[in-house]
Amino acid sequence: MHALKERVLREGKDLGNGILKVDGFINHQVDPTLMFDCGSELARLFREAAATKVLTAEISGIGPALLTGYHLGVPVVYARKAKPITMPDQVFLTLSHSHTKGTAVELMVSPEYLSPDDRVLIIDDFLASGATILALIRLARAAGATLVGVGALIEKRFEGGRDALAHEGVPVHALVCVTSMADGRIGLADSADPA
Amino acid sequence: MHALKERVLREGKDLGNGILKVDGFINHQVDPTLMFDCGSELARLFREAAATKVLTAEISGIGPALLTGYHLGVPVVYARKAKPITMPDQVFLTLSHSHTKGTAVELMVSPEYLSPDDRVLIIDDFLASGATILALIRLARAAGATLVGVGALIEKRFEGGRDALAHEGVPVHALVCVTSMADGRIGLADSADPA
Repeated sequence: MHALKERVLREGKDLGNGILKVDGFINHQVDPTLMFDCGSELARLFREAAATKVLTAEISGIGPALLTGYHLGVPVVYARKAKPITMPDQVFLTLSHSHTKGTAVELMVSPEYLSPDDRVLIIDDFLASGATILALIRLARAAGATLVGVGALIEKRFEGGRDALAHEGVPVHALVCVTSMADGRIGLADSADPA
Repeated sequence: MHALKERVLREGKDLGNGILKVDGFINHQVDPTLMFDCGSELARLFREAAATKVLTAEISGIGPALLTGYHLGVPVVYARKAKPITMPDQVFLTLSHSHTKGTAVELMVSPEYLSPDDRVLIIDDFLASGATILALIRLARAAGATLVGVGALIEKRFEGGRDALAHEGVPVHALVCVTSMADGRIGLADSADPA
């Protein structure tokens, strides 16, 4: 995914402690054309998984998930961090440790939107330690749904998320892979997915 | 916007106290094709406003804002409710009363992404009392930007938001207008925008 790679190299900032700031096009200000193209590419990579739902976590996962869902033609469910009053009292809930917040956050999905019939593709902005994605997998499993794949815009390979997901036995794809962040320099792998 | 109107009538639920539940296609599970078409229609309505940025509030505003921004070809900024560690210390911050949460929430935007050169189109899922949208207008003004329009998927006209925005002197458009909610029945206006 050349366009995203270029953007990460040009505008991404290493804030230290493994924090990659991509606020200018993914996390705070979003480039919708880039996101549309990323969604198209993720949809292509997961077309054979025959997902019936895309699942993500609010907030930054919504953009890539929404456009992947658009290109796959399936609904997108986002796990909420706080229970709105429109959500039923009985929900699927799990805890996830947030690296950027330094605390555990709740993630919850209404049983109205995930069922044992669903084939769930998880899409998030980052694949880092895998904590958020593992939490989403627990939510999908709690609903009895089948996990069919995990995709992210950017993988930080040095945080080990791909290894943490290995035993899930589903395809894992990222569009860009960061292999190192040191002294303000961002190192990218030539190919996003390992051979 | 016939498709959205149909969907509100078929799947929207009056939860009482003016709360319209549209979680199945807008707020928790999103229909990306419907959202794509809504973005296209909002972009058409605001094309002449020549916006340089679309501004929304996380979380439910992200879908419609992202796809309006896609169709207009401009970046989308979403005001955050909590300050991530990637955001600079100095931000534009305002308070907004949340009807669905019953409390005041903070909304903040980094000065990196709104400037005096920007022409800001505000897009949100609902236009209800207008509280969130007025908060977004304060953020745009704090940045010295020019407000050029306000759009929403669904207006609850009986909550007065359109009147609250009248003195802003910018076009206000909604795709669907709810005129009444009583005894579980949702009343819609024939035309979303008043004559």
